[in-house]
Amino acid sequence: MAPGVWKATAGAPERVSLLGAAGANPSLDGLQRVGATEFPLDRAEIVAQVVDGKLALRFPLGAREQLYGLGLNFKAVEQRGSVKTLHVDHFGGTDNGRTHAPVPFYVSSAGYGVLIDAARYITVYAGTAIRTDSKHPPVVKDRNRDRSWSSQPLSDAVEVLVPAAGATIYVFGGPTPLDAVRRYNLFSGGGVLPPKWGLGFMHRVPTLFTADQATAEVADFASRGYPLDMLGLEPGWQSAAYPGTFVWDTTRFRDPDAFIKAMSRAGVRVNLWMNPYVAPTSPLFRPIAALSGSHTVWTGIVPDVMHPSARRIMLDHFDRELVRRGVSGYKIDEVDGYDRWLWPDQASFPSGLSGEQMRQVYGVAIQRATADAYRARDQRTYGLVRASNAGAASLPYVIYNDYYGHPEFLTALVSSSFIGVLWTPEVRSSKTGEEWLRRMQAVCFSPLAMLNAWSDGTKPWSFAEVATPVRDVMQLRIRLLPYIYTAFARYHFDGIPPVRAMALEKGFRVDQPSAPGVLSSTDNPYAVATHRDVKDQWMLGDALLVAPMFAGDSTRTVVLPSGRWYDFWTGALAGDGQVITVKPGLDRIPLFVREGSTIPMLAGDHLHVPAPGEPSDLELRHYGREPGTFELYDDDGITFGYERGAYSWTPLTVARGADGALVGAEPRRAAGKPFSYRSLTWRMMTPR
Amino acid sequence: MAPGVWKATAGAPERVSLLGAAGANPSLDGLQRVGATEFPLDRAEIVAQVVDGKLALRFPLGAREQLYGLGLNFKAVEQRGSVKTLHVDHFGGTDNGRTHAPVPFYVSSAGYGVLIDAARYITVYAGTAIRTDSKHPPVVKDRNRDRSWSSQPLSDAVEVLVPAAGATIYVFGGPTPLDAVRRYNLFSGGGVLPPKWGLGFMHRVPTLFTADQATAEVADFASRGYPLDMLGLEPGWQSAAYPGTFVWDTTRFRDPDAFIKAMSRAGVRVNLWMNPYVAPTSPLFRPIAALSGSHTVWTGIVPDVMHPSARRIMLDHFDRELVRRGVSGYKIDEVDGYDRWLWPDQASFPSGLSGEQMRQVYGVAIQRATADAYRARDQRTYGLVRASNAGAASLPYVIYNDYYGHPEFLTALVSSSFIGVLWTPEVRSSKTGEEWLRRMQAVCFSPLAMLNAWSDGTKPWSFAEVATPVRDVMQLRIRLLPYIYTAFARYHFDGIPPVRAMALEKGFRVDQPSAPGVLSSTDNPYAVATHRDVKDQWMLGDALLVAPMFAGDSTRTVVLPSGRWYDFWTGALAGDGQVITVKPGLDRIPLFVREGSTIPMLAGDHLHVPAPGEPSDLELRHYGREPGTFELYDDDGITFGYERGAYSWTPLTVARGADGALVGAEPRRAAGKPFSYRSLTWRMMTPR
Repeated sequence: MAPGVWKATAGAPERVSLLGAAGANPSLDGLQRVGATEFPLDRAEIVAQVVDGKLALRFPLGAREQLYGLGLNFKAVEQRGSVKTLHVDHFGGTDNGRTHAPVPFYVSSAGYGVLIDAARYITVYAGTAIRTDSKHPPVVKDRNRDRSWSSQPLSDAVEVLVPAAGATIYVFGGPTPLDAVRRYNLFSGGGVLPPKWGLGFMHRVPTLFTADQATAEVADFASRGYPLDMLGLEPGWQSAAYPGTFVWDTTRFRDPDAFIKAMSRAGVRVNLWMNPYVAPTSPLFRPIAALSGSHTVWTGIVPDVMHPSARRIMLDHFDRELVRRGVSGYKIDEVDGYDRWLWPDQASFPSGLSGEQMRQVYGVAIQRATADAYRARDQRTYGLVRASNAGAASLPYVIYNDYYGHPEFLTALVSSSFIGVLWTPEVRSSKTGEEWLRRMQAVCFSPLAMLNAWSDGTKPWSFAEVATPVRDVMQLRIRLLPYIYTAFARYHFDGIPPVRAMALEKGFRVDQPSAPGVLSSTDNPYAVATHRDVKDQWMLGDALLVAPMFAGDSTRTVVLPSGRWYDFWTGALAGDGQVITVKPGLDRIPLFVREGSTIPMLAGDHLHVPAPGEPSDLELRHYGREPGTFELYDDDGITFGYERGAYSWTPLTVARGADGALVGAEPRRAAGKPFSYRSLTWRMMTPR
Repeated sequence: MAPGVWKATAGAPERVSLLGAAGANPSLDGLQRVGATEFPLDRAEIVAQVVDGKLALRFPLGAREQLYGLGLNFKAVEQRGSVKTLHVDHFGGTDNGRTHAPVPFYVSSAGYGVLIDAARYITVYAGTAIRTDSKHPPVVKDRNRDRSWSSQPLSDAVEVLVPAAGATIYVFGGPTPLDAVRRYNLFSGGGVLPPKWGLGFMHRVPTLFTADQATAEVADFASRGYPLDMLGLEPGWQSAAYPGTFVWDTTRFRDPDAFIKAMSRAGVRVNLWMNPYVAPTSPLFRPIAALSGSHTVWTGIVPDVMHPSARRIMLDHFDRELVRRGVSGYKIDEVDGYDRWLWPDQASFPSGLSGEQMRQVYGVAIQRATADAYRARDQRTYGLVRASNAGAASLPYVIYNDYYGHPEFLTALVSSSFIGVLWTPEVRSSKTGEEWLRRMQAVCFSPLAMLNAWSDGTKPWSFAEVATPVRDVMQLRIRLLPYIYTAFARYHFDGIPPVRAMALEKGFRVDQPSAPGVLSSTDNPYAVATHRDVKDQWMLGDALLVAPMFAGDSTRTVVLPSGRWYDFWTGALAGDGQVITVKPGLDRIPLFVREGSTIPMLAGDHLHVPAPGEPSDLELRHYGREPGTFELYDDDGITFGYERGAYSWTPLTVARGADGALVGAEPRRAAGKPFSYRSLTWRMMTPR
């Protein structure tokens, strides 16, 4: 297909596919840049056959490989030894394959990736099944007396069952796991480049808020010095919801145009909640009824988002009512689950899709449709969605859910990086100021910094005892815009996820042996061993390692990859390829910077991400004892001009001066290219 | 098929079926006794069609119907509004269809039952799916402002998706829910009648126990006055396990025959743990290797229990090594799950079954095979198993698992009564003496009173502070043998489950309105309403209502059906069709007896259930102010003579004497029929 990407067809693939529904359009340029590599697997060990009317696949698996991916997971990053039936659904507390983005893509620590492109509930046995004719059979042990007995003997295969007559399979080459992920993302079109304002702060207001109340809330943020770029309106913007009318409620929003314009003047974009289920009283109902599914959801009809005419009718309506008026994007709710709320698998749709197929693609299809409508206006959008799947890297949506466990929210952030989706560990409410601060600190180092207190009405300053450190970390989020925006540019052009699991990082090793299980009839009846899975720290951009704190903890361990790492706050050496313990205090989230890196930040405080054309000053923080160069990306921040060449990469270089001291150079700017920054001030963070 | 039982074939059913694998052989006599009734559904509203290559079924559902059944559930008894994909598995914390007995049978409060007989992962939408062309569409409401909005609008159908080309469907008539359950059980062959010793107490010993240690343990029970009828040996009886050799370990059991004989002399039967996965070092391995599945489990091969030759080889071996020597039965472990331990769905078996089909039937097929082997010796067995399915009523096995939550264990007991399976809320260990006692009290009113402390080695007397009340309730279990054995006879002959959910009881009503949900962004984001589901009390036999206590509680509410109910312990009136609150103290489990009922009990204390031919004395406790008759069942307690007419039903009648007082009559015994009881003493429990 492209350098390092191979495609195979097994059986007769169905007409609908995940990549097709996502409208994934490979970035061949990007793939060329990553370059060629060898086919990573032993072809003779890949088996496809039809068993019991379904497609059974088998891929070889080495004894020392670890596996990642297989959907957005909340409990574990490492997936070897698990079985999942990949099924779009809300996350229900177990990493069993039912999740918001059940992407059938796995990445191996051996440096390759495999995608099964079928819009079905695919079951993956990720190193569990063992054949009687295996060439690498595990050792037989007596559990009665052999303490080394394991409940999971070593399997030499990944087995996959696709409940369909065929599927398309893609293999992505290495040599590193990150290379495989990059190729997967580039094959999906390259990662999304959000508008700059999308990397600011989002706040959502209670459902029955009026235009006046929303306006007052925005003013409150500004007067208190808390940054705000996006305001989310919940279902109450509509005249009725669940099912929705998709028209403004004129009692709460008498003049939507005036409201949106006022928001815009205040530097704030409006984002609107919706789910796709159409009320009989909606003007959309009559035109779209014949293009909807066989079943209702919350008494609303379900537009067949895979049918071109249904898409056109929806998008025309959205364009007229929303986009044209200046709405910046959507929060697309409840396209994930639960089973008892959505259509059943035997539902049918005019496009010919079954309920099962539609369940797997509704999320990506509605993301693609709405994204294309913004693109048609040369305007970027950035919003929220609850369902996604394979091929979604280029889609301008961030996944969220209702689970709300803080550790699980952060593990999802880590696991999102393998499968080409974005996730926000949004903040809703907290029991204590400490929890509030810890959650706010973490969300500010995610793809979407959001407070989603639609019901509780909590504000960033609601916990007075932490109001200042909350504002500080929100300010830091805005100040980091040049750095984070560049990380997203790397996602777009090079396929490198802006947030990355440690397993995607060079120099990172976790090969601690498992702890033997302790037999207990009630707590661990099979004496299953425990293993350390690093699931609560991640990389943001090239240089920043984020190691957040959870409420109740005053210390934590951080696993540093090899190479020297420096404390973001002080510039002091933190460690080199070791596990360190930190005690950061309440006000700070532990952050570490790689040797020789520069973090470009906006100078001073900001109430918003700088507007297009608004010049700003940069503070360039350099860490460590080595020289280095950071390539700073920029463009207009709101249009698709970057696809037409209207962008710049500016090298920010630190060199060693004559006296051996590190010196930051004045950057050479590319002529005639967008560059928003006025003055640049270097700051050497690490004492010589 | 029989009075009140209808069969339909939709599409082309597969060769393997659940009822076929269970060897269910309808009790036409019993069905005749229940009698004829009308077809309970509107035939025109039953729809079957092939959609997306699968069989889609639809059954009508009235607005006020409640649904029960759909597998062994641990969290809820009422199932309307749920979606389940029925899949043999361990219970993982959610009633999602993955359970030890995912029986595709539902019972309606309107008085009928529906069974989908297909060995597939069937999905049931139990009153959730709503069609756009529904004849009874739910009311459209605006969630923004209408407090009566529900996240689950009313559906008028049960929809079912069978991932196969066809299925056989059975409808069981009423007019009551219990009638439908009775017909289902009788159609499955009638309920199991365990040997009398099976209703005594079972204790299991640690894995590496030797014959001497086991013998000492049995003696310890006797010397301390704790009853014991069955001793369970864990994997250590085998020379190796996980995978198993299926031969005795001669270091721990030098002379198995002598050991079993000594146990027998001590009044105790031996039960042996096994799972079916065969070690390469087993003498079974070579003969059965070619008749095993394509994948191993814990490095053992998986005998194709659906293949006649494999069955014969296994059973010949079991007979020679175990049954012939006097082993009373098995604990068949790990035929349920997890997915990561068992064979994958794409596994294949020599009998032609796929991994999916085999997963659904392995449990019932191995129950049937081992039961038939005992039957061939005219010897009853009673054991434990972790997987079952439809058609299992007549199989002499009780389901257990590792979940160990006490409330969930008791809800499973309640839910087992709808689907023709038995369940034990076994006791393993406890954190406190109070919990220990509460668990022991509850298990003594279940189909199998078992302590399963294989790992911890806890004994009934381990918590000294409750050692006496534990012994008391174990003694009560044994004393209730005539009553409980009769309840099982009613299961066998009449299909009436010995343990019954309150919803199967005449006079029971739960129609309290749902409590409106309170909106919370983190705890209840959809403001889902809560509803009282009575899931912690049950009927045992005709007359006894069991309302157990959980550790930490000093009071509880009990929902009494209409009619007068009396305290078992004091004979005092407890209530009539009302919700009462009781404060029973630590030593007693709340028990209530229906007006006019007699509870026949063994007189005095016992170390074992009486042996065959051993006469015993009866104490007949009568409750209430009304006369009544209890039909007492008896037979030899160990053979299948009862199938050849060797049993008795003896009326125990209380009549009103000339002075208006209640008087117990001397029973008329049937001549020439088994009757184990010598003297009978009436005791009028309720003061006049």
